[in-house]
Amino acid sequence: MRERELIEYIRTLAGTKAPPWLEVGIGDDAAVLRLPGGQGLVVTTDMLIEGTHFLPGTPPEAVGRKAVARALSDLAAMASRPLCILAAVCFGQRCEPGTPERLSKALWEASLELSAPLIGGDVAAGDGPLSVTVTAIGLPGAKGIVTRAGARPGDAVCVTGSLGGALRGRHLSFTPRVAEALELAARLDVHAMIDISDGLSTDLLHIAEASGVGITVQAGAIPVSEDALALSQEAAPEDLPIRHALNDGEDYELIFCVPEQEAEAALSAAPGTPVSVIGKVTAGGESFIVWPDGRREPLRGAGWEHLSE
Amino acid sequence: MRERELIEYIRTLAGTKAPPWLEVGIGDDAAVLRLPGGQGLVVTTDMLIEGTHFLPGTPPEAVGRKAVARALSDLAAMASRPLCILAAVCFGQRCEPGTPERLSKALWEASLELSAPLIGGDVAAGDGPLSVTVTAIGLPGAKGIVTRAGARPGDAVCVTGSLGGALRGRHLSFTPRVAEALELAARLDVHAMIDISDGLSTDLLHIAEASGVGITVQAGAIPVSEDALALSQEAAPEDLPIRHALNDGEDYELIFCVPEQEAEAALSAAPGTPVSVIGKVTAGGESFIVWPDGRREPLRGAGWEHLSE
Repeated sequence: MRERELIEYIRTLAGTKAPPWLEVGIGDDAAVLRLPGGQGLVVTTDMLIEGTHFLPGTPPEAVGRKAVARALSDLAAMASRPLCILAAVCFGQRCEPGTPERLSKALWEASLELSAPLIGGDVAAGDGPLSVTVTAIGLPGAKGIVTRAGARPGDAVCVTGSLGGALRGRHLSFTPRVAEALELAARLDVHAMIDISDGLSTDLLHIAEASGVGITVQAGAIPVSEDALALSQEAAPEDLPIRHALNDGEDYELIFCVPEQEAEAALSAAPGTPVSVIGKVTAGGESFIVWPDGRREPLRGAGWEHLSE
Repeated sequence: MRERELIEYIRTLAGTKAPPWLEVGIGDDAAVLRLPGGQGLVVTTDMLIEGTHFLPGTPPEAVGRKAVARALSDLAAMASRPLCILAAVCFGQRCEPGTPERLSKALWEASLELSAPLIGGDVAAGDGPLSVTVTAIGLPGAKGIVTRAGARPGDAVCVTGSLGGALRGRHLSFTPRVAEALELAARLDVHAMIDISDGLSTDLLHIAEASGVGITVQAGAIPVSEDALALSQEAAPEDLPIRHALNDGEDYELIFCVPEQEAEAALSAAPGTPVSVIGKVTAGGESFIVWPDGRREPLRGAGWEHLSE
């Protein structure tokens, strides 16, 4: 059973008896609750497993930082402000001496660097790979949260940064787009947002599906990273850089949808971070990619799936 | 490095820069934060790992329920009311077909049974044992939270239920003492509380250490469970039942301290659940156990440690 199907299964179960204080449940980047008294709370939990999400031998410092950054990227996707994290670490038996201390310190330091102090956790040993589960808790931004589900026909589809080839190193060192998400949501009428973890193509389809719309993306407008270019040259020149930008995943950039008339303002709404308009939301349920030569193909989610059958 | 030392290390790091809104940090059963607007929030995260916390072959239904119950027991220990849970599950490669669905359903059903609906999570596959990490979120009870740290000399030391031999099955099927904790905290002036996961002896010392006091416990007053008696008869008669009650752990009962004049009221303060007074808090830093023949020994924490060196 694939991850996606399993989440769908759990979402079906959970949908049957969702409590009234739950504003956003399973299936978005984070859950949103309304506490007694009215305070909103945004929570998400994210696993990082050796052999699945990082290679054996990755320095504990990089593992700890990535675990924290990844969970906070989910809060960013909801336009929420991180408050704190909890971390549960399972050290494998094959763990090198010093790893527990180095990883603990890395979690703590990353939590401070990214303004979400580590306030609790659990540690244990298990007969398996190293794993780190980070739960991040945040508060809605000034204008409330943003989900995947609000894209409307006519909206411009935008993306921060440049995409592809994150596995060359950026997947370990990225800074989650927390500040950018808060700025964008404060300055613009952001209808929908998601962070790119599975890959641009897959995450565009996540927005389309959750919003009940289609998305038509212009391949020529997609910002292709230096890493995607390098990867294409180094590894397999038949894999064009645009394919890496579309499908590699782990970019942890933001895709967001705004009314068409805000498309220009969007370009400079995240100070210090480039924004590109890459497509448009359509009323039909189908999504397409338009190549520079005018060819138009159905958009397929070919992004990274964390779990194979 | 042992779990305890590692938590101590993290606590030292975290203590250097604790944010002002953090009322209880690393080292208690759960962390307590004060949100903007004043609402308190109680959060805890807890791992359950195949081979460490349950035997391979344990039905997924029992694993799921235990994972939820264990995290909620930590909220009970703080006299807080569960609101919801998040669960992160790593399925091993050796996982039997059907396990993902059965475990997901069990987590969902346990979350409803125990009044803390599952609202989010993560699933992945890893090359190792099955593991379930549950993050539980709760709200302080009517009179606020209770920690390990408030025991005062002269207090009566009480315990709910009966202890020992949980590994005969109770460790998989217990109901966390959430209702009891809320009742006790509402009716009595509970100075300190903890749930028994590591074992009565170890968890008594956790209260003593956190409160800067000693505890003298009367061996003859400790409620010994039927399971402890059975285990002693079945397995190793030289291991007296009282040893099981003191050291087995995973009872998930509550130890709590109240002013001496409330000791009698405590006996009936948790409707439907027996309470025993087992000892007294002392001003010295040392803790003792007094045997029925009058012998008095230092109390040693011989409870279960989750991580061996």
